[in-house]
Amino acid sequence: MDPKVAIDTLWVLITAMLVFFMNLGFGCVESGFARSKNTVNILSKNFIVFACSTVSFWLIGWGLMFGDGSPFFGLKGLFMLHGADNSPLTGDAYQGVYSAINWTGVPLLAKFFFQLVFAGTAATIVSGAVAERIKYISFILFSFLLVGLIYPVTGHWIWGGGWLAGLGMWDFAGSTVVHSVGGWAALAGVLVLGPRFGKYGPNGKINAIPGHSLPLGTIGVFVLWLGWFGFNPGSTMAADPGLISHICVTTNMAAATGILGATLTSWFLLKKPDLGMTINGCLAGLVAITAPCAFVSVGSSAIIGFLAGIIVVLSVIFFDRARIDDPVGALSVHLVNGIFGTLCVGLFAQDWVSPETTGNGLLFGGGTKLLTSQAIGVVAAGAYTFFAALIFWFIIKAFVGLRVSLHEEIEGLDIGEHGNAAYPDFVIHKPSYTAISSGSFVKHISNTPELSGKR
Amino acid sequence: MDPKVAIDTLWVLITAMLVFFMNLGFGCVESGFARSKNTVNILSKNFIVFACSTVSFWLIGWGLMFGDGSPFFGLKGLFMLHGADNSPLTGDAYQGVYSAINWTGVPLLAKFFFQLVFAGTAATIVSGAVAERIKYISFILFSFLLVGLIYPVTGHWIWGGGWLAGLGMWDFAGSTVVHSVGGWAALAGVLVLGPRFGKYGPNGKINAIPGHSLPLGTIGVFVLWLGWFGFNPGSTMAADPGLISHICVTTNMAAATGILGATLTSWFLLKKPDLGMTINGCLAGLVAITAPCAFVSVGSSAIIGFLAGIIVVLSVIFFDRARIDDPVGALSVHLVNGIFGTLCVGLFAQDWVSPETTGNGLLFGGGTKLLTSQAIGVVAAGAYTFFAALIFWFIIKAFVGLRVSLHEEIEGLDIGEHGNAAYPDFVIHKPSYTAISSGSFVKHISNTPELSGKR
Amino acid sequence: MDPKVAIDTLWVLITAMLVFFMNLGFGCVESGFARSKNTVNILSKNFIVFACSTVSFWLIGWGLMFGDGSPFFGLKGLFMLHGADNSPLTGDAYQGVYSAINWTGVPLLAKFFFQLVFAGTAATIVSGAVAERIKYISFILFSFLLVGLIYPVTGHWIWGGGWLAGLGMWDFAGSTVVHSVGGWAALAGVLVLGPRFGKYGPNGKINAIPGHSLPLGTIGVFVLWLGWFGFNPGSTMAADPGLISHICVTTNMAAATGILGATLTSWFLLKKPDLGMTINGCLAGLVAITAPCAFVSVGSSAIIGFLAGIIVVLSVIFFDRARIDDPVGALSVHLVNGIFGTLCVGLFAQDWVSPETTGNGLLFGGGTKLLTSQAIGVVAAGAYTFFAALIFWFIIKAFVGLRVSLHEEIEGLDIGEHGNAAYPDFVIHKPSYTAISSGSFVKHISNTPELSGKR
Repeated sequence: MDPKVAIDTLWVLITAMLVFFMNLGFGCVESGFARSKNTVNILSKNFIVFACSTVSFWLIGWGLMFGDGSPFFGLKGLFMLHGADNSPLTGDAYQGVYSAINWTGVPLLAKFFFQLVFAGTAATIVSGAVAERIKYISFILFSFLLVGLIYPVTGHWIWGGGWLAGLGMWDFAGSTVVHSVGGWAALAGVLVLGPRFGKYGPNGKINAIPGHSLPLGTIGVFVLWLGWFGFNPGSTMAADPGLISHICVTTNMAAATGILGATLTSWFLLKKPDLGMTINGCLAGLVAITAPCAFVSVGSSAIIGFLAGIIVVLSVIFFDRARIDDPVGALSVHLVNGIFGTLCVGLFAQDWVSPETTGNGLLFGGGTKLLTSQAIGVVAAGAYTFFAALIFWFIIKAFVGLRVSLHEEIEGLDIGEHGNAAYPDFVIHKPSYTAISSGSFVKHISNTPELSGKR
Repeated sequence: MDPKVAIDTLWVLITAMLVFFMNLGFGCVESGFARSKNTVNILSKNFIVFACSTVSFWLIGWGLMFGDGSPFFGLKGLFMLHGADNSPLTGDAYQGVYSAINWTGVPLLAKFFFQLVFAGTAATIVSGAVAERIKYISFILFSFLLVGLIYPVTGHWIWGGGWLAGLGMWDFAGSTVVHSVGGWAALAGVLVLGPRFGKYGPNGKINAIPGHSLPLGTIGVFVLWLGWFGFNPGSTMAADPGLISHICVTTNMAAATGILGATLTSWFLLKKPDLGMTINGCLAGLVAITAPCAFVSVGSSAIIGFLAGIIVVLSVIFFDRARIDDPVGALSVHLVNGIFGTLCVGLFAQDWVSPETTGNGLLFGGGTKLLTSQAIGVVAAGAYTFFAALIFWFIIKAFVGLRVSLHEEIEGLDIGEHGNAAYPDFVIHKPSYTAISSGSFVKHISNTPELSGKR
Repeated sequence: MDPKVAIDTLWVLITAMLVFFMNLGFGCVESGFARSKNTVNILSKNFIVFACSTVSFWLIGWGLMFGDGSPFFGLKGLFMLHGADNSPLTGDAYQGVYSAINWTGVPLLAKFFFQLVFAGTAATIVSGAVAERIKYISFILFSFLLVGLIYPVTGHWIWGGGWLAGLGMWDFAGSTVVHSVGGWAALAGVLVLGPRFGKYGPNGKINAIPGHSLPLGTIGVFVLWLGWFGFNPGSTMAADPGLISHICVTTNMAAATGILGATLTSWFLLKKPDLGMTINGCLAGLVAITAPCAFVSVGSSAIIGFLAGIIVVLSVIFFDRARIDDPVGALSVHLVNGIFGTLCVGLFAQDWVSPETTGNGLLFGGGTKLLTSQAIGVVAAGAYTFFAALIFWFIIKAFVGLRVSLHEEIEGLDIGEHGNAAYPDFVIHKPSYTAISSGSFVKHISNTPELSGKR
């Protein structure tokens, strides 16, 4: 047997396992940044979302994304992963229906497993932004639809041999395919759902709602950082020694400078180095380097990460003021920095890093051609995902409703949705909203259509 | 050097590390599902059990399990891992005393390390079922005995070239060898120990005793799920690209459908999607696919997992009503689904998945021969393990006692056994049993031999 | 392509990822063993320290450590990882400026990534010892200096082809290079900072200050144990099947016997098996086997770990009585056992384990030559590190101060340094120091120069 196939398969499977482990990271970050009364619900969502993704991507998503067919979606190998793929014997003799991914010589099921964990990541990004008010069943249904019908389409455009790939757009490990797509779907959900009760008071007051466990959040980010060493270097889908070593270093460097950028920015703007900002800076750097990790130098990765760290702090403040209520900062991390990272390919790419791919970006004398392709990709993927997601959110709202009752939201979704308490032995502070739910605030609710009307 | 040996060794060691990491998963699941007053004790047990397993398996277990000798246990290479094994130079020239495991060409210590982490898993399964009432020293002693003298014997029968292997029984990664064996040993312990104080009230009342931290429990299951990507695909003990990719996908699929099966079942039976059931469904799917993961199709793995998810919910309810008190559901997950998974080989195996191994199962035209062998294996391993464990539990009870005092059980084992508090900074609810321990309940105790008598 | 380069690179990168993950382990252990009011601060430190290490090691540390030059520090390839290294084509034709590390044939960036995560480990060791009283900014500055200017120098002596390597000192994976160096730097910090307020009462009373979450601490140790399977076996920097299997087993064995040694010792001395001692015993065994893991037999590793477990308990008691306040036991684990492990090479090494390296140690007939070299290495690395660290601590103290105000220390660093609360939903016990800060204790403070004066 050719040892190369075995080595590449090991790399693909092990990195896929690391990406799988990001489910734990997202679960911890999102539950840590939410209130204790919604912890079981968030953990449940982050847990079952990967089960839904597995089934949905197997049933339909994989074929839509990688099947041969049209520039817009796959038409072959559509259901339950059937269809030939002889890629381990690559070369002129390739026979199969997944030609967009025949460049890697690992077995079909290794490719499927690796792509599955990526699809699951996109779905789990949504979970955090819609947390603390969405119905469990509604989130489950959306997850099936996102992974089965939305994610694979833009994925086909960029990674499945579709029209954006033909245009010369490059997204190495998914700043757009995974992160900004997850972010756009989340934004649509947040807009349809509206903010959490109590987040925006009367007279324009913006209330901070602190997360209930920063240790949980920090554990989560460390796990995600580890997972990213699967996400980015694994996207080679082959154990190319020089390239995977390069990507490990650029990925780690952007995380590091993202931390420093966000910490300094929050120290300057908020007077103290807020831990929430520090760890979102890390994630921002990681999201931003995801598209360019294989195309830029280590020095450029340091700059990209640092800028991402600044951007994420400004973005969190912006969404807060724009009254777009995202409990965990998922939009700032995944959407905004997914876009930023995709554009960074057009700015910072250098031909020597991965010859015969992107060529040079704008800052290294390559002109605006690459940057333009990247921008087209950002807009196209964003437009499709946002509107497709919006339609699905509205359909779900019409049939089963999206939001839990106000009473359940105040009491916490753990009891209402699951009948569980996350921390039954511990004495918990009486929620402050029992106070604000009396008096003038109740009046405010009754005047707020999205709170008093159908949810 | 032959690159195959290096590649296989990498695979075996890395997957062994993942299986090792399951110790963290078990520790989190078990402590999360128990009360805060017993947290230190459970963590201590889950921690030290792997130390005991390491020493015990090195001193005696490995040789009993894999040494050449009789169909019932090994007789060569018995103590402290001595004995030649030239397996990296496999073939006709094999010389050594571990011929049952000479089919993999990795160094002896890689085989030992991989098998050691499996032995540790069996021991740690016991920990959860006997939690919240067993003496620390008694559990430590049992762990030494289980890994040194019980586990290796049935292991020899099935994986060590013993009589069940000769009969044509197949257990790819240990639904029986590890999980149901751990489960039988736990069942014996639970029966000897009796239920926790307060679990069963007077007049037949069954009290739910909720776990103190569902985040801890959920973290644990994610870690276990990751660990299973070592457990099952690693059991190839060689980096066969097609097979390990296949096993990654069947393993993941059964976990996913196990989640869905248990969630739907609990939603239907209990009216709400209980998080405890959801995560036990995941574990049930994983245990059930452990034996057949290399022998069944992806579609079959989806069915097996889904059924396991249903079974685990029914089983938890059954044990609860049967007054067999298993705080974490270990019997339902590991024993019941270990049996179910072993039988699934006889039902769902298909020859094309791993040619020249099982042949077809009953549902694919292979008749009842395979299913019968599997059933014999289940019964034989169960009978030996249960009675051997029972004897050792009674011996320990006679010499050092098994159960902490009622006072210590009510106060919590953390103080009584370790002098530590798990959460000294937090205000904890007064335990409800201070209430129930007065009045009629005390009377109930004094009439209950296993509570008032020698423990 | 030569498959060996790909296999070795996989091994180096994957083990480096495991070592990276130790940052999570340290974060959990240190925050779990500290009080809840300082949790955010400790997590922040453990998080940002790796960002600082990444930048500092890239800017200057790597070149100082591995660049060609003098026996005392590197002089080539100094800034930002520039300089040629053709090591994948090793042999006579080697051309580059990092000849001390040209023995491994992986790409330069793989070497850098692996060494970077080691440098980060040394820095994070400091964090625990100085916890609960150091200013955030001061710790950040020290981290930059440690990784940029202290760690690489002794690293050069031993791993960079410097004078200690020439003398025949062996430290396979860093008992000295990483652990005792981190420990010496921490000791200097502890001495300059002084003990936490309330640790030592009037009249010589020693107060125990229990950590706020033993689950967090235990999770951390499991993660560290996993990480050590990267740390030690990865230090081969090549996938040598026999050697990496051997190191996995010796590493695991020492952890196991370290657990048993510390548990028995604390059971004997403290009357109960304290969980904190058990898990420090595990870490002690791991630190002690780090230097000799590739040079000693499995049986010797069992002895080394067991002794380390005894030593760590005695050492914790010693430092406590010596009024050297180390909240997490970092000095006992990393400094004391780092020294012990380094000396164990001189005692337990056997030539057959890694031929043509250490030769036999004292206990196996090799005489005192090796032991003498090891002792010289211990003393030299300790003297340099301790005094260099002391100077930097004093410089930082002079310019920005080292210690938070007494008011902030009593209130907790989370609010004072970060404006965050770790657990805002939970009811926390009123700190006992509000009581002791009144009356005689206040008087005690005003008589204590390091508490009442400039901090």
